[in-house]
Amino acid sequence: MSREIERKYLVVGEAWRSPGTAIRLRQGYLSTVKERTVRVRVAGDAGYLTVKGITRGATRTEFEYEIPVADADLMLDELCERPLIEKTRHLVVHGDLTWEIDEFGGVNTGLVIAEVELEDEAQPIDLPAWVGEEVTADPRYFNANLIAHPYSRW
Amino acid sequence: MSREIERKYLVVGEAWRSPGTAIRLRQGYLSTVKERTVRVRVAGDAGYLTVKGITRGATRTEFEYEIPVADADLMLDELCERPLIEKTRHLVVHGDLTWEIDEFGGVNTGLVIAEVELEDEAQPIDLPAWVGEEVTADPRYFNANLIAHPYSRW
Repeated sequence: MSREIERKYLVVGEAWRSPGTAIRLRQGYLSTVKERTVRVRVAGDAGYLTVKGITRGATRTEFEYEIPVADADLMLDELCERPLIEKTRHLVVHGDLTWEIDEFGGVNTGLVIAEVELEDEAQPIDLPAWVGEEVTADPRYFNANLIAHPYSRW
Repeated sequence: MSREIERKYLVVGEAWRSPGTAIRLRQGYLSTVKERTVRVRVAGDAGYLTVKGITRGATRTEFEYEIPVADADLMLDELCERPLIEKTRHLVVHGDLTWEIDEFGGVNTGLVIAEVELEDEAQPIDLPAWVGEEVTADPRYFNANLIAHPYSRW
């Protein structure tokens, strides 16, 4: 178990783009109930099953287990809620922090979100210039909610 | 991933009781949606996270992962739907098959169910005398349904 402390922002412009690391993520949900979400993810050739509790402030209980990628693919193809979430994750280092910038595809195309993991909620953040509005607490941006209410239909 | 083929029966009388193996199970659900149930179980000092698909006939897709028992306990205590399921599982060998007899506790006290895992759905079964009505297809007896509709309230 870990406590995930994370802030989330909209991304402005294209200045964040660099030849850095990018990985394709395909993920779906076995539960989108906010008190107990269960996510299946394929990241490259690795599979993960992740259980998260409710978000309080910027903090959330998280349990993540690596599972065979064949299992994850089967769960995504046969069991998870529709539609699946597809996104490309870019890792961008700025100062002491590594930002994860998610460029969504499929029914969420056009949405670009930057996330940063923190040690504690009060930690000061040196915000890059391409960071826009903070949306940490806005449930529309929870990945579990981008299934029933995808960005293309906002 | 495995295919679970299982038949389930009510248990009649007490003749099945023997000094055989018994284990206490405590389990709860992160999803009770029948297309994608997600179960957390503590069995003795082992923890498990189990994903199951919908039951077709006596067959169900199942993915089970062992997880740290401390994680399972935390998920049961903090995340799972209420109430939890508590039962004692007795293993009883009869002929070539090992039966799992679940004696439920808590809000399901009084319910005793025998389950047997099969190689294929057509496999003939030598039914012990203490086996009563088959309830394989009766959704009331799905463990995930014994939460919202416990046996004590039938």
